[in-house]
Amino acid sequence: MSKVFLVRKEHFCASHRLHSDALSDEENKRIFDKCNNKNGHGHNYTLEVTVHADIDSNTGMIINLVDLKEIIKKWILDPFDHKHLNLDTEEFKSVNPTVENMVLVFWGILIKTELNSMLYEVRLFETENNIAYYRG
Amino acid sequence: MSKVFLVRKEHFCASHRLHSDALSDEENKRIFDKCNNKNGHGHNYTLEVTVHADIDSNTGMIINLVDLKEIIKKWILDPFDHKHLNLDTEEFKSVNPTVENMVLVFWGILIKTELNSMLYEVRLFETENNIAYYRG
Amino acid sequence: MSKVFLVRKEHFCASHRLHSDALSDEENKRIFDKCNNKNGHGHNYTLEVTVHADIDSNTGMIINLVDLKEIIKKWILDPFDHKHLNLDTEEFKSVNPTVENMVLVFWGILIKTELNSMLYEVRLFETENNIAYYRG
Amino acid sequence: MSKVFLVRKEHFCASHRLHSDALSDEENKRIFDKCNNKNGHGHNYTLEVTVHADIDSNTGMIINLVDLKEIIKKWILDPFDHKHLNLDTEEFKSVNPTVENMVLVFWGILIKTELNSMLYEVRLFETENNIAYYRG
Amino acid sequence: MSKVFLVRKEHFCASHRLHSDALSDEENKRIFDKCNNKNGHGHNYTLEVTVHADIDSNTGMIINLVDLKEIIKKWILDPFDHKHLNLDTEEFKSVNPTVENMVLVFWGILIKTELNSMLYEVRLFETENNIAYYRG
Amino acid sequence: MSKVFLVRKEHFCASHRLHSDALSDEENKRIFDKCNNKNGHGHNYTLEVTVHADIDSNTGMIINLVDLKEIIKKWILDPFDHKHLNLDTEEFKSVNPTVENMVLVFWGILIKTELNSMLYEVRLFETENNIAYYRG
Repeated sequence: MSKVFLVRKEHFCASHRLHSDALSDEENKRIFDKCNNKNGHGHNYTLEVTVHADIDSNTGMIINLVDLKEIIKKWILDPFDHKHLNLDTEEFKSVNPTVENMVLVFWGILIKTELNSMLYEVRLFETENNIAYYRG
Repeated sequence: MSKVFLVRKEHFCASHRLHSDALSDEENKRIFDKCNNKNGHGHNYTLEVTVHADIDSNTGMIINLVDLKEIIKKWILDPFDHKHLNLDTEEFKSVNPTVENMVLVFWGILIKTELNSMLYEVRLFETENNIAYYRG
Repeated sequence: MSKVFLVRKEHFCASHRLHSDALSDEENKRIFDKCNNKNGHGHNYTLEVTVHADIDSNTGMIINLVDLKEIIKKWILDPFDHKHLNLDTEEFKSVNPTVENMVLVFWGILIKTELNSMLYEVRLFETENNIAYYRG
Repeated sequence: MSKVFLVRKEHFCASHRLHSDALSDEENKRIFDKCNNKNGHGHNYTLEVTVHADIDSNTGMIINLVDLKEIIKKWILDPFDHKHLNLDTEEFKSVNPTVENMVLVFWGILIKTELNSMLYEVRLFETENNIAYYRG
Repeated sequence: MSKVFLVRKEHFCASHRLHSDALSDEENKRIFDKCNNKNGHGHNYTLEVTVHADIDSNTGMIINLVDLKEIIKKWILDPFDHKHLNLDTEEFKSVNPTVENMVLVFWGILIKTELNSMLYEVRLFETENNIAYYRG
Repeated sequence: MSKVFLVRKEHFCASHRLHSDALSDEENKRIFDKCNNKNGHGHNYTLEVTVHADIDSNTGMIINLVDLKEIIKKWILDPFDHKHLNLDTEEFKSVNPTVENMVLVFWGILIKTELNSMLYEVRLFETENNIAYYRG
């Protein structure tokens, strides 16, 4: 009867290069500057996944945090942790891995899992100071 | 005329055991695993209470932070800090102290105080990675 | 097509005195207590500016974080960093620099910049425990 | 040839009760106050283990962080995480689990492992504000 | 028999102005720049006091954290919190309140209290990035 | 007359690959596992540089924090920020960029600057949980 928000925070490390195929090399250099460095650079990403649902009166949970953790591990950490996003993942081969695009892509992945209708927000910290989030 | 959100963050330490009377011992063990440990375990909880109201033009405040702090101390810290939630508090004798249930219970307490109509959100960090919030 | 939220976090150091011209000295002392200290006191403020807009399909950004950083620097950090808010800034000569008033003032400044329609939230941490935010 | 310090930080949750068998009930109550609560309370403990040794010229490591992590897991996290220290562990049945005694006990355990001669410091955060460390 | 280190972390807010009477106005401006702003600026200071002593076998403590907290409150927080260091305190009337001088002054105060021979380190965070410490 | 420690904390983002030319591919894979990923991964590194010297009685400083910041920027941030350590920097072309080797390399660079005799410690956080430091 009472819809509560539940947040699980996870961490992963990856490298990326900001580069758009739709732009010239000069534009890429001008717009992304040092983030356009050919060999890439990297971040300790912090991911927050928020779900929103009724509390199960038997368990007192809206989803078991162990399960939520497993879903994030399976769909985000396993494929993206310790990877070069542009070179090692299909998702960012042609999509520029800005923090904005990354929350969109991660939302797109998680919305197809069992989280589906309870997914409320995907928030990503690229650094402590650069953060994006998406709510569908 | 301008409704602003104000957040006060407080800390308390408590122990708890995840256990539901509606479930068998086997189910409790399977669902809550190590959190079901008979003698309990504990956390440094961080509580964030958000109020939402017009700024008083004389004081520049929506509520005096000293008063907000006192209300949280009186209604949450004094009764729950340094306690075993299941054994020492009435609220969690029959309610499983999951982080979801805890924000519901704390909301239920704070909504009856002078915060009443200005209460916007109760957020609880069980650990840095496990967080729940409720907005009524 | 997809509206994403983007947050940039910045820091500044300032001193202030909580004091309202609309109140007597006794009321000021009673209400603001040690924050009413004649010579003021200070804080390391953390400012979070959130914008909300569609992702540009060419760049993958809703706004270049370098530009967002520059706008905050120009309009907030340059005029308010390392200042005594009551004595050194026009904005708080007659407006009491409570954390509530500060988010209102900063919103009022930023809404007139190129951020305008994409501005979603201005959040200010006076300390880790005292936070205000405004969403227009 | 170059001795470097390496630190691994880990987290565990436990409950405890400050109580000394060498003191009367009145003394226990007076000295430990709310920490003497009969049913205990709990913390999110953060443990930092520092080792000090020469860098292996082949690997560039003084110890593989994966191994260091495993040693801490095996000897500290597995036996103490999600436990009531006084009731569930042999080490604190008769030793009062103050943060001072805890670093001593954890040092005593880790010094007998393969870390042995490279162990430099064991540091424990009971809360963000209460910390103890021991260097042998 | 076992000497353990114990750390207590406290917070205070103050304003200050970096200015040396031994320097000309031009030198003060050149050396301290925006920190020389006439009306001052401020910080949320974090203070860490470390003591080093044998564990009392009866209590399991080297000093009661409640007492340590009280000593810091009495000698540092009460006189310096919510103050303008240069204008409101005797200690910094003629001593420039750099973070280096502040740890020296605080050490000088604490070494004369009952902490005396157990005092090991005084550490002060002016910001998250600017830190000084002194060990006598 | 009074030697004080001063710490400046800075941040940079880089990618790296743990790989040793002295080891076979199988050994590299076994020892460094996912950190050996061919295209690398990355981190938000936090660097803490500690200097130790007498306070200048005129300025109250042991070194101007602005100068300390500039030295770190010139010698560490400019060459290593937003780089792939193995591919873009001479220092790590043949030296495996483990966190242990990185503090050694950074110490070797900073000891040759004007910091020289006042350099006390170089500490590097690869993540919040993996930290190395070196004291010469």
